[in-house]
Amino acid sequence: MSGNTLGTLFCVTNFGESHGPAIGCVVDGCPPGLALEAADIQAELDRRRPGTSRHVTQRQEADQVEILSGVYQGVTTGTPIALLIRNTDARSKDYSNIADTFRPGHADFTYTHKYGLRDPRGGGRSSARLTAPTVAAGAIAKKWLAEQYGIRVRGYMSQLGPIPIPFVSWDEVPNNAFYAPNAGIVPELEAYMDQLRRDGDSIGARVEVVAENVPVGWGEPIYDRLDADIAHVMMGLNAVKGVSIGAGFGSITQRGSEHGDEITPEGFIGNNAGGVLGGISTGQPVTVSLAIKPTSSIRVERHSINSEGEPIMVQTLGRHDPCVGIRATPIVEAMLALVLMDHALRHRAQCG
Amino acid sequence: MSGNTLGTLFCVTNFGESHGPAIGCVVDGCPPGLALEAADIQAELDRRRPGTSRHVTQRQEADQVEILSGVYQGVTTGTPIALLIRNTDARSKDYSNIADTFRPGHADFTYTHKYGLRDPRGGGRSSARLTAPTVAAGAIAKKWLAEQYGIRVRGYMSQLGPIPIPFVSWDEVPNNAFYAPNAGIVPELEAYMDQLRRDGDSIGARVEVVAENVPVGWGEPIYDRLDADIAHVMMGLNAVKGVSIGAGFGSITQRGSEHGDEITPEGFIGNNAGGVLGGISTGQPVTVSLAIKPTSSIRVERHSINSEGEPIMVQTLGRHDPCVGIRATPIVEAMLALVLMDHALRHRAQCG
Amino acid sequence: MSGNTLGTLFCVTNFGESHGPAIGCVVDGCPPGLALEAADIQAELDRRRPGTSRHVTQRQEADQVEILSGVYQGVTTGTPIALLIRNTDARSKDYSNIADTFRPGHADFTYTHKYGLRDPRGGGRSSARLTAPTVAAGAIAKKWLAEQYGIRVRGYMSQLGPIPIPFVSWDEVPNNAFYAPNAGIVPELEAYMDQLRRDGDSIGARVEVVAENVPVGWGEPIYDRLDADIAHVMMGLNAVKGVSIGAGFGSITQRGSEHGDEITPEGFIGNNAGGVLGGISTGQPVTVSLAIKPTSSIRVERHSINSEGEPIMVQTLGRHDPCVGIRATPIVEAMLALVLMDHALRHRAQCG
Amino acid sequence: MSGNTLGTLFCVTNFGESHGPAIGCVVDGCPPGLALEAADIQAELDRRRPGTSRHVTQRQEADQVEILSGVYQGVTTGTPIALLIRNTDARSKDYSNIADTFRPGHADFTYTHKYGLRDPRGGGRSSARLTAPTVAAGAIAKKWLAEQYGIRVRGYMSQLGPIPIPFVSWDEVPNNAFYAPNAGIVPELEAYMDQLRRDGDSIGARVEVVAENVPVGWGEPIYDRLDADIAHVMMGLNAVKGVSIGAGFGSITQRGSEHGDEITPEGFIGNNAGGVLGGISTGQPVTVSLAIKPTSSIRVERHSINSEGEPIMVQTLGRHDPCVGIRATPIVEAMLALVLMDHALRHRAQCG
Repeated sequence: MSGNTLGTLFCVTNFGESHGPAIGCVVDGCPPGLALEAADIQAELDRRRPGTSRHVTQRQEADQVEILSGVYQGVTTGTPIALLIRNTDARSKDYSNIADTFRPGHADFTYTHKYGLRDPRGGGRSSARLTAPTVAAGAIAKKWLAEQYGIRVRGYMSQLGPIPIPFVSWDEVPNNAFYAPNAGIVPELEAYMDQLRRDGDSIGARVEVVAENVPVGWGEPIYDRLDADIAHVMMGLNAVKGVSIGAGFGSITQRGSEHGDEITPEGFIGNNAGGVLGGISTGQPVTVSLAIKPTSSIRVERHSINSEGEPIMVQTLGRHDPCVGIRATPIVEAMLALVLMDHALRHRAQCG
Repeated sequence: MSGNTLGTLFCVTNFGESHGPAIGCVVDGCPPGLALEAADIQAELDRRRPGTSRHVTQRQEADQVEILSGVYQGVTTGTPIALLIRNTDARSKDYSNIADTFRPGHADFTYTHKYGLRDPRGGGRSSARLTAPTVAAGAIAKKWLAEQYGIRVRGYMSQLGPIPIPFVSWDEVPNNAFYAPNAGIVPELEAYMDQLRRDGDSIGARVEVVAENVPVGWGEPIYDRLDADIAHVMMGLNAVKGVSIGAGFGSITQRGSEHGDEITPEGFIGNNAGGVLGGISTGQPVTVSLAIKPTSSIRVERHSINSEGEPIMVQTLGRHDPCVGIRATPIVEAMLALVLMDHALRHRAQCG
Repeated sequence: MSGNTLGTLFCVTNFGESHGPAIGCVVDGCPPGLALEAADIQAELDRRRPGTSRHVTQRQEADQVEILSGVYQGVTTGTPIALLIRNTDARSKDYSNIADTFRPGHADFTYTHKYGLRDPRGGGRSSARLTAPTVAAGAIAKKWLAEQYGIRVRGYMSQLGPIPIPFVSWDEVPNNAFYAPNAGIVPELEAYMDQLRRDGDSIGARVEVVAENVPVGWGEPIYDRLDADIAHVMMGLNAVKGVSIGAGFGSITQRGSEHGDEITPEGFIGNNAGGVLGGISTGQPVTVSLAIKPTSSIRVERHSINSEGEPIMVQTLGRHDPCVGIRATPIVEAMLALVLMDHALRHRAQCG
Repeated sequence: MSGNTLGTLFCVTNFGESHGPAIGCVVDGCPPGLALEAADIQAELDRRRPGTSRHVTQRQEADQVEILSGVYQGVTTGTPIALLIRNTDARSKDYSNIADTFRPGHADFTYTHKYGLRDPRGGGRSSARLTAPTVAAGAIAKKWLAEQYGIRVRGYMSQLGPIPIPFVSWDEVPNNAFYAPNAGIVPELEAYMDQLRRDGDSIGARVEVVAENVPVGWGEPIYDRLDADIAHVMMGLNAVKGVSIGAGFGSITQRGSEHGDEITPEGFIGNNAGGVLGGISTGQPVTVSLAIKPTSSIRVERHSINSEGEPIMVQTLGRHDPCVGIRATPIVEAMLALVLMDHALRHRAQCG
């Protein structure tokens, strides 16, 4: 099966390179009858779009999406929905100096060794720009899940490098560049990022994503558990180095009498399970936490080698995100929505 | 695609219930010409087998594997390898009292709601017993990877509840019931477990697994990255609540100048990447860390409901692992081997 | 994806060799709640079983099926259903003389070249014996389709070598060894077969299979059309050399004004479409026709080569079907049922 | 898995509607390092293009293909190759009168019942126009197969309605509008088609396709045989009602002593097998024959119903192929190439 396709029944096939003519995806398996227009998708793309604050890459991409198929008179027809986004601000000159070098922490090295060649322009296929089609596809899933089940998928940043961000309110998330659920901490985050930019360095982050109103019963135990498929899609996102569900790594030190969420006629008490037991949704919120590494493209000089294997010093100039975690929130929301929609259809297939 | 099948080219289809007639799997896609006999598989099953120390479930299962197909005169033929393990010590009476109850932290609740019914005997399909076929399949992958590439996949327990287990040596791992790489700490672990058993409670754990000598170039970027597929299979294991690669959640507080592993003509300096960059193996060891939750089956009484939705108190008697993490090591080794072998074949298909 | 797995949602993974310890399959994706016991499956296996008349192979196999998993208290649980059939009458000595030879028309040559080795006992994996697990899986599909939709899948032989068999009545099909819908022609068929056996030769046949009461709307246009998936499964059956739907090859000489089935408020007039338009079922009977080649295992001496590439004369002794078409009917019924059930679930997934 | 995706390792995901903004596909799994430019693909599209003779639809489509990704500096990179073809001559008014009617022999009826709605413009997704992306993808497969193995895939028309077309020479195929391997018969074919157009009717055809130099050993026995996958893709082509391999339906009347191709040290004698034994290629030419039904879109009036279920008379005006078989040759060549390339990669994966 195509390595660039996600999903079993609600399938997203992603294509494109950072500085090629276009990026996009084909979404197959969408139920017919969903009202859909480009604006529905554009809204999510705009949340992910670069250049929207001084804390992210200054590359200017309108990320204007065109629906090429699968929609007729504003409604999905059940046939594949092809989504196209033209690359418009691809400045290849910024990257010419790195065509023959391998940047530490970057996919240059592995792509070159795997394929014997690579597209060096802006990271080519390994660029985080390729999350845009995923976000576009996720917008469709989000809309369908909301209409069919009232599911809401939302994320936020819970830590920026050394700074934990206590949760205050969902309402504050859209009001700052960091997707921080905490207005009071934003000045501290901004100061940290400003200093980081001056240092020419980058930083990691932690992002949470939650899906509410997921019905009980979604997931295919052994091996395609709901949490397994969530882990797959999340770890498949650029820069993610860790994924956890519910109590996550905190479970290590828990006793069974503490971890197992008790049940009452009114529902579960607590959610250490993160909304998944035995690989199947419990009806509780599905809660996911991600560790995102610092960007590899930094101005700080590093030791590396060139394609001849000779030692060199590498410094990555150009327009880069100093913390990819900042723009991760809309992406991980999309990813969670894609997995949920796929399992909604899988469940419906088997269990009616 | 079958939810009970793992892999794209090296495929494992798992079947069985804890107390049904048998468990097993069909392994499809194995290259022909691999010397294979039941003893190769049995050795790994014996490492996972219950009843081998007082710290694990006392259920006695020989877990004797029979090769039903795919091997002729001691060599794989390229056709499906069916592996059969009869259940022999299935005492259904231990579980009869829970047929109508939902145990906190258990899959009873979700299976019943998903399928409208469930096999309550020993957890049915949700039992950790179903990891045995995975281990059996993994033994084939381990053997092939070792012979073809010299790959070695090894795991160990790095934390038992509150007790971190400093790594001393791989040599110590097989010498204790915990797969601890540290002989000195074993008495402390034993004492902890003995007290836990007296308490009728359970505890979480952390397990590490490492694959050495993985060639550079394995993995399918967007979406079937090597790390994504590792996360999928690991989170698909019973009781796992978190998966990380390389620096994992430690990446959150790292700067790019610290995280990105520098490269020299002699190789990488450090392995924050955990052997994967851009979803493709780097040639460094692939390092994975898992958070395993405490077992749900405990003697401590908990609040729950029965199938009528009425409040009850639940106490789980019978034979259970008080720390499933203890027996997890051979399982997670098998899982990592399965993913690596699948990607070895996928890489060979596309890149020759 | 596993080459030995059929289906997207209702998946059958087939394993075994003709003279290995056992054959069988794992059926995954079956909806929960279907009443199922071994007898349901056995009835179909008995229809396919060898040794039931003098016109088929005299190998004696009880083909006793054991359900290993996926059924609890007589009802499917939604988990994989593993089916096991032990081989009991495997006389390897019959085949020892052909281990190093390639029989004309047989898979010996291709298996050996593909895999570098083969299991020569009774044709190994290429034996038509491996259709038994398919029939077993098909019995489940047949039962579910009948209960859910009233679908009936039936087949018959329409031609035995040079003898066309005019359709008289479905009622006559179970009353003769040929699955002929025509009692009057049976003596002629028997005489033909008796002479053929004396000649030590074999003969081709044509088989029809029809599914009634298939709802309108099943099938995934481009590329997994209902007719495409039917063609896939049918051409995947041993000895099948041609598959057609509806008017089939007769369409070549038809005009559009003749071929296109007119529609009235009461339904279609005619069924040149064979129940499929644009890859989607029309609600008319799905009609499939198959060309089955003569068995390759014959007593007549033929020119061939051995594994050294030297010229030899080959004569195949042992117990073989002189016309595999005779036993094909229950198999092709099973196959059509499997495709229909898979598309039933796929349709339900996408279209509710 | 996506119903609009073909292939296991060399995957083609097709999108678009006849009169939407664009059609196209994403080709995933292509080996890196293949020289590829739009002109390679355009050459095959031009062979399939409408409007090239008076015997085919007069719709004028340049079918200009744009490579959006997966190629860098004229060479494939191993990442998905997205191909885009804009629709330029979409005259929706021609079809407005049929939006609420079901044409006999057409997919209108089934699409509407499956999805609850349909795109009526030019047949929407069910249009034969959607074979263009398949042809584009096939051009890549053809090129790779030729370079790697010297494989040549060629087709021709062997019968036009009642007129059999005796094979004379491959050289004559490109010299006439019918892909007839016989220059002498072309006037008869032209006269037949001219009369047919005057009648406002359509006609069926038979097309052959042959792949030479296919290595021995490709195919996955049970269930993904090479011939099974060929049957799948061929029956998945619009208007195909029958598929056969080698002796095909002629096998029915053959004896085993006639059908089984004898083997000599110099190779096979005869090719009744059509290049496939036991689902695996023999090294002989792979020969496939297709029955193509007459087009449903004809001027002759037919009985049908409208979307209210009321009886109506339907006459299909607009620009249509009176014999879709005429333009089928480049399409079926592409399809055979796609299957072969997929199996080349599958074989390489398992057998090295």
